[in-house]
Amino acid sequence: MSESEFAAVAVGRVHSPLVDPGAAPKQGDEGAPEATISFADRFREALDGIGPGDEVLVLTWLDRGDRDVLRVHPRGDTDRPEIGVFATRSPDRPNPIGLHRVEVAAIDGTRVRVRGLEAVDGTPVVDLKPVLRRR
Amino acid sequence: MSESEFAAVAVGRVHSPLVDPGAAPKQGDEGAPEATISFADRFREALDGIGPGDEVLVLTWLDRGDRDVLRVHPRGDTDRPEIGVFATRSPDRPNPIGLHRVEVAAIDGTRVRVRGLEAVDGTPVVDLKPVLRRR
Repeated sequence: MSESEFAAVAVGRVHSPLVDPGAAPKQGDEGAPEATISFADRFREALDGIGPGDEVLVLTWLDRGDRDVLRVHPRGDTDRPEIGVFATRSPDRPNPIGLHRVEVAAIDGTRVRVRGLEAVDGTPVVDLKPVLRRR
Repeated sequence: MSESEFAAVAVGRVHSPLVDPGAAPKQGDEGAPEATISFADRFREALDGIGPGDEVLVLTWLDRGDRDVLRVHPRGDTDRPEIGVFATRSPDRPNPIGLHRVEVAAIDGTRVRVRGLEAVDGTPVVDLKPVLRRR
């Protein structure tokens, strides 16, 4: 791997009733169901301090995204002119990292139940971060 | 690469007067200077639609982060008990992805001038996303 490439590893996976990317809501506050993220055992300690009610950011690797796409119609609406993918949340982008703000509903070992995650079943998770309050 | 590993590519680099990670502010609203992100030419089209005044999220690959660390003292303060890295914004984490909310000051081709970026000089950039307004 060159110095401009980095190996991201899946730390967990999404388990969700959402299976069809075309039918999935575009954003988590547009009707996403509850989902569970199962983390690999070796990352268990990294979850210490996370609990029910916490708002967290889930970073996913949208492995069905087309990494060669640089311009898209916003929200797939062909009536709107194409713009650059960096100005959109399209899953088609050079590094298909998804960013999802969710609420933790429950946590049991390495299984974290969340509300508002629009990723489809099986999506790899690469990071979890606390939401920072703006001062 | 296994099905649980993904090759993230640098789409650009940070140019900043910040060179010492220890001296860098922990968050962008804690006194980060202006910085420039230079994108590789082949990603130029992906920037279409981004302009001065936009608030955007910059995703970086914090390549000095220690990927084996699972627990840290919050903000490096040893008086505070260790917690899991997923409950913090520590650069030491399994996938050292940094998330930075910044304001675009100016854009000139593939060079984007931003305010409030706490990443050090040379940090690889892996994605740029618009800030979504909460409804």
